[in-house]
Amino acid sequence: DHWEMNYHEAAIFLEEGENNEKFDSHPRHPSALPAYLLVHNSWYYGLDLTFSIILLLLALAESPSVDKFQLPVGIHGTLELVSLGVIGVELALKLRWIGWTMILKHKRTMVKGITLFIMVLESVIVLVRQSSHFRVTRALRPIFLVDTRACGAVRRFIRQILQSLPPILDMLVLLLFFVCSYSLLGYFLFSEHATNLYFRSLSDSFVSMFVLLTTANFPDVMMPSYKESKWNAIFFISYISTVLYVLMNLMLAVVYETFTGIEKDKFRKLLLHKRKACQLAFRLLVSKQTPNMVRFKQFHGLMRYYSPRTSQRDVVLIFRQLNTSGTGSLTEDEFLGIYDAITLRWRLKDPPDPWFSAAWPPLRMFCRAARKIVTWEYFEHIVYVLIVGNGLAMFIRVLESSVSLEEGARNFCASWDTYLFLTLFLVEALLRIVGLGWGEYISSGWNFFDLSVTLVALIGSLLLLVRPNLTVVVILRPLRLLRLFKLKKRYRDIFGTLVLLSPLMWSTAIVMMVMYYFFAIIGMELFAKYELRDCCTDTAVKDFYKYDPTANATIGYYYYLNNFSNLLISGVTLFELTVVNNWFIVMEAYASVAHPSSRIFFMLFYLFTMVVLTIVVASVLEAFRFRIQYKKQTSKRDEEQMLHEEVVVDWNSLQRQVQEPKLLESLQLDFVPGGVSIYIGRRRRTRDVLQRHMYISEIAQWLQEAEEQERITGI
Amino acid sequence: DHWEMNYHEAAIFLEEGENNEKFDSHPRHPSALPAYLLVHNSWYYGLDLTFSIILLLLALAESPSVDKFQLPVGIHGTLELVSLGVIGVELALKLRWIGWTMILKHKRTMVKGITLFIMVLESVIVLVRQSSHFRVTRALRPIFLVDTRACGAVRRFIRQILQSLPPILDMLVLLLFFVCSYSLLGYFLFSEHATNLYFRSLSDSFVSMFVLLTTANFPDVMMPSYKESKWNAIFFISYISTVLYVLMNLMLAVVYETFTGIEKDKFRKLLLHKRKACQLAFRLLVSKQTPNMVRFKQFHGLMRYYSPRTSQRDVVLIFRQLNTSGTGSLTEDEFLGIYDAITLRWRLKDPPDPWFSAAWPPLRMFCRAARKIVTWEYFEHIVYVLIVGNGLAMFIRVLESSVSLEEGARNFCASWDTYLFLTLFLVEALLRIVGLGWGEYISSGWNFFDLSVTLVALIGSLLLLVRPNLTVVVILRPLRLLRLFKLKKRYRDIFGTLVLLSPLMWSTAIVMMVMYYFFAIIGMELFAKYELRDCCTDTAVKDFYKYDPTANATIGYYYYLNNFSNLLISGVTLFELTVVNNWFIVMEAYASVAHPSSRIFFMLFYLFTMVVLTIVVASVLEAFRFRIQYKKQTSKRDEEQMLHEEVVVDWNSLQRQVQEPKLLESLQLDFVPGGVSIYIGRRRRTRDVLQRHMYISEIAQWLQEAEEQERITGI
Ligand code: NA
Ligand code: NA
Repeated sequence: DHWEMNYHEAAIFLEEGENNEKFDSHPRHPSALPAYLLVHNSWYYGLDLTFSIILLLLALAESPSVDKFQLPVGIHGTLELVSLGVIGVELALKLRWIGWTMILKHKRTMVKGITLFIMVLESVIVLVRQSSHFRVTRALRPIFLVDTRACGAVRRFIRQILQSLPPILDMLVLLLFFVCSYSLLGYFLFSEHATNLYFRSLSDSFVSMFVLLTTANFPDVMMPSYKESKWNAIFFISYISTVLYVLMNLMLAVVYETFTGIEKDKFRKLLLHKRKACQLAFRLLVSKQTPNMVRFKQFHGLMRYYSPRTSQRDVVLIFRQLNTSGTGSLTEDEFLGIYDAITLRWRLKDPPDPWFSAAWPPLRMFCRAARKIVTWEYFEHIVYVLIVGNGLAMFIRVLESSVSLEEGARNFCASWDTYLFLTLFLVEALLRIVGLGWGEYISSGWNFFDLSVTLVALIGSLLLLVRPNLTVVVILRPLRLLRLFKLKKRYRDIFGTLVLLSPLMWSTAIVMMVMYYFFAIIGMELFAKYELRDCCTDTAVKDFYKYDPTANATIGYYYYLNNFSNLLISGVTLFELTVVNNWFIVMEAYASVAHPSSRIFFMLFYLFTMVVLTIVVASVLEAFRFRIQYKKQTSKRDEEQMLHEEVVVDWNSLQRQVQEPKLLESLQLDFVPGGVSIYIGRRRRTRDVLQRHMYISEIAQWLQEAEEQERITGI
Repeated sequence: DHWEMNYHEAAIFLEEGENNEKFDSHPRHPSALPAYLLVHNSWYYGLDLTFSIILLLLALAESPSVDKFQLPVGIHGTLELVSLGVIGVELALKLRWIGWTMILKHKRTMVKGITLFIMVLESVIVLVRQSSHFRVTRALRPIFLVDTRACGAVRRFIRQILQSLPPILDMLVLLLFFVCSYSLLGYFLFSEHATNLYFRSLSDSFVSMFVLLTTANFPDVMMPSYKESKWNAIFFISYISTVLYVLMNLMLAVVYETFTGIEKDKFRKLLLHKRKACQLAFRLLVSKQTPNMVRFKQFHGLMRYYSPRTSQRDVVLIFRQLNTSGTGSLTEDEFLGIYDAITLRWRLKDPPDPWFSAAWPPLRMFCRAARKIVTWEYFEHIVYVLIVGNGLAMFIRVLESSVSLEEGARNFCASWDTYLFLTLFLVEALLRIVGLGWGEYISSGWNFFDLSVTLVALIGSLLLLVRPNLTVVVILRPLRLLRLFKLKKRYRDIFGTLVLLSPLMWSTAIVMMVMYYFFAIIGMELFAKYELRDCCTDTAVKDFYKYDPTANATIGYYYYLNNFSNLLISGVTLFELTVVNNWFIVMEAYASVAHPSSRIFFMLFYLFTMVVLTIVVASVLEAFRFRIQYKKQTSKRDEEQMLHEEVVVDWNSLQRQVQEPKLLESLQLDFVPGGVSIYIGRRRRTRDVLQRHMYISEIAQWLQEAEEQERITGI
């Protein structure tokens, strides 16, 4: 029982190391462990996430609501109170575990507590008054989502954004100097032209030059001055050349440089933090008799808590893999590799004969023939010829004319050539599955892509026969063409970089959603009540808001649809502002119908999104550069060695090591009793693995420095 | 005389090394030297450049001409023939020097010859017919400018662009796949909506999605579909997210990676080429008695041809600096540093007392006081306080209201506070000049900036008093505020990177001009005759081309001014297309009035400018990163050591070395007869110098490899 507590606490240390959580909130006493267990389990995480999302989704039901989701104030008010209650209870449980005094150290928890308190107060007021009032604090609801366990990566990305802010702010100051200077000059040059709305006053001039920073009002802003004198073009050309093509590129460069510095430092800090976690966990797994060794039994116990889904076989293999010295017990240095080791996926080095070797002889011959075909060097060539052939057939179908859209769609993806090629693709996939075996076949990402794309195209084609107006399925037939991009190394680099970037893209998407939610709530509070049809008659954007309900007009801008009437429409409007093009049309409309200072909302949103998007570009550049450098430094053979670990397990040593008969019995299926089994552990090609390979020399240096510091301080 | 020839030929080798010209066209025989001299002198270069520019400027006079510059066909045709004649003669002289058979090896010369031939033919036809016809070949005139000596850097940048093209083309193929797929899907989804002009046909759909790639038609392209169903927003959001935010960023990453690889390789090749040039030149400077040494006399002779503007004193110092062994003769290894050595700027290490030490005593006291003030540690603080005070005064003046623009301008930069601060700035500058001496004062870029900005602001202020409507001078007063950016390291990094980038920005500007000229000529040939007023009545862009000659309208788009009616207007139109925003409005107008296939011209121009601008962004990123890495690897002390060379010259060894009495006599002014002089040579902080410092280990490796290869091949 004492050991069980140690296993659990050691697992907690390892979790805290992986999550980059400070150890000062670690439960130091056994009495605090139940409180920890309440706060660190699937239920807690699940409820936290669920009610955070429910809280966010309430915005669909609250006024101004999406029509279908409208709810009375009493119901959405109650739901809000319940959600806030659950989050509040969870926060109280967490505070009970980490200690109430610790809230002052945890800035994040303190902000969450204060926000929660304010929101509960407001929620009660809404329920008592039975009506919504001006509630900008709803914009802070994403705080609860970001603070969930599932959004750890999002928090890290937000922290990285905040760390990249200083250089951006510096560049914004420099930009602002140029915008203000040119605004002053533009005002003095052009404000006398009566027809020029863009420079009538200093504030008009500033708004025009700020928008010109985004190029959104060019060449419109220039044309009245250009009409007066062609030489006035010099003012605009010099401004755009300086500010857009020099300073904005320098801003990207500054952010890129800061970002790449953070990336490496982040890796170093996490590495050292994990090392500290391993050291703390290691001390809980040793006995007084062997204070420098962790035996298999203790390791096995730890794994039950730290990674309960790992099979018994894998626990044995992980232990053997870590135990490079072969002593049967792990030293502290060997134990430091546990984070890496548990990511390995194991399989036998020399699997038994293919699945068909014991089958019926005619089937066996067929399967061997399939395998021979699939491994034939020209088989890939044939597949690519088929894909190109399908492309040509598609091209011909596109060029054909058809009497209607539905006939065109049917000709394109429900005709004989469609079925011919789909059949050939299915035969190809079947041959591969039969020849290679399902497991080996599906382990390749490209095979998975091919099979799913072919099946989806077939389903789409059949759907079109059933429902002829479902023309959207035309997109499914060209998807197989993407396979052709596998042929060239540069495209493989690009797809490889995209795979490396996918975690960050996910975080980016959530950060953007959070930002959209924040600004959408504020936008709805500020602008929901304004009608934009036929508005802004004395402004430069009046054409975009003309409204003609009678005509079946061939041309209409429909800009009045870009508003803040509910959460989803606000999201689309904010996406349009993110894309930046024509953003000023929406801004000027609200500046006209609401108040000129509404522009602050739109300018702030532009600056926020520009910051995040600049960081996205910087991260794409950094990831691409990292992957290219890694590929340059690493040969194919080095990579194979880096991604694979081999473990030799002979039964006799295993019997000595594993002393539980029941466990040994279950292992007889995985290991050869009395013989030797060789397993291969494969690492996934994550960024962490690549970084650990590339920074080998620096890692050694960091570890050495950490050891010296520990020697000095005594711990 | 034999030595003079050798000096000249050695100088030619050194020039060819510096210009990265192949040695195979080097004049091998003394008889070819006169032909070389005809082709390699200031007159040849000057005439080449002058007539290339005249040829380009003819487009202002040719139809469709700029009104003021219109010339009869006979005159501009004759000027063209004369220009082409001069360029033709120069080409013939060059071919006489390098040999007619060599033209097949020189692709550039061959292209130039063919282009010249075609243009002469066309020019004669124009003169004979006395009218201009469809002459797209005028667009090729920049070939002659690019081929001039002055545009060597431009040629290198163009070569770098061409080397960066493959990855861009790969990415364009991937982009095109997505554009075509989404075009097909968009057509099948939205073409049934009668009011939706954007997806009526497959070609309309493709054009819309291509333009959406540039975001220029967003959210307009979405609004009709968005009005039909809000869910259609998903189509556009997914397209923009994939293509704009992922693929375009990946394209920048791909180009950046390629570009940085080229940059280093370019440096290596130029380094090795210069080394080969030095070796070839060295052999011409040695005598049979000392075949491994170059004596001062030969070096002095070489410098007369290679760098005639270098003073006698500097030649001595350069020789002494190269002669690190102190033997009085240069070895081949020492001679390899000549390219670096001749860039050094020399001054005495311990200059005599300041200029005022021998002056009138009261003046001397005043000057010493000025020097003490200027070198006082808080003097800079006072200057910054003055600058901020000027900023506040400007801010107050801006906030004041005034009855007219002229009074506002006068209050802003011709009022008492303007003159107060300008006077203070002039006193500050005067104190610095007096305290430091003019030479030391002006050697600092910031001091030069301060003085010129202050004087320019004063001149502008006085001009405003004379001509009150010259309100453009308001821009001059805020310029001193830029000095405040010197306070922060990040801004110093930015300005330092800008200085590093200025040569490339110059090349970029010329490349863009060349591209504008090319497309402007084609655009004028294709579109000059079309009238855009009140055009495109059945298109989505008709509002932009409404023309109302009667009204004094408050709002007008004036897009009809964006046309190709002459070279300068075409340039402004192309700049608007470069900025990309609303580019499709101009494109759709010409697609409507001329022919739908006109879109190819605009799409090609977009792709060309996108390529160049992507490379510009990549070069900014690379330069910033290079400078940061350099700053990281180099301490202040390292940099001082790197940028400075010290040479000790004692008179006795100089007498032994320089055996001409006349030369020695002239050197008595620079060196202390009978004593010792210590000179400091300062390198400019160019990119080349920084690269040579950063790549020290790689340079050693490259040189070693080159030596081994020479040992193997025998030369
Ligand atoms: Na735009
Ligand atoms: Na636009």
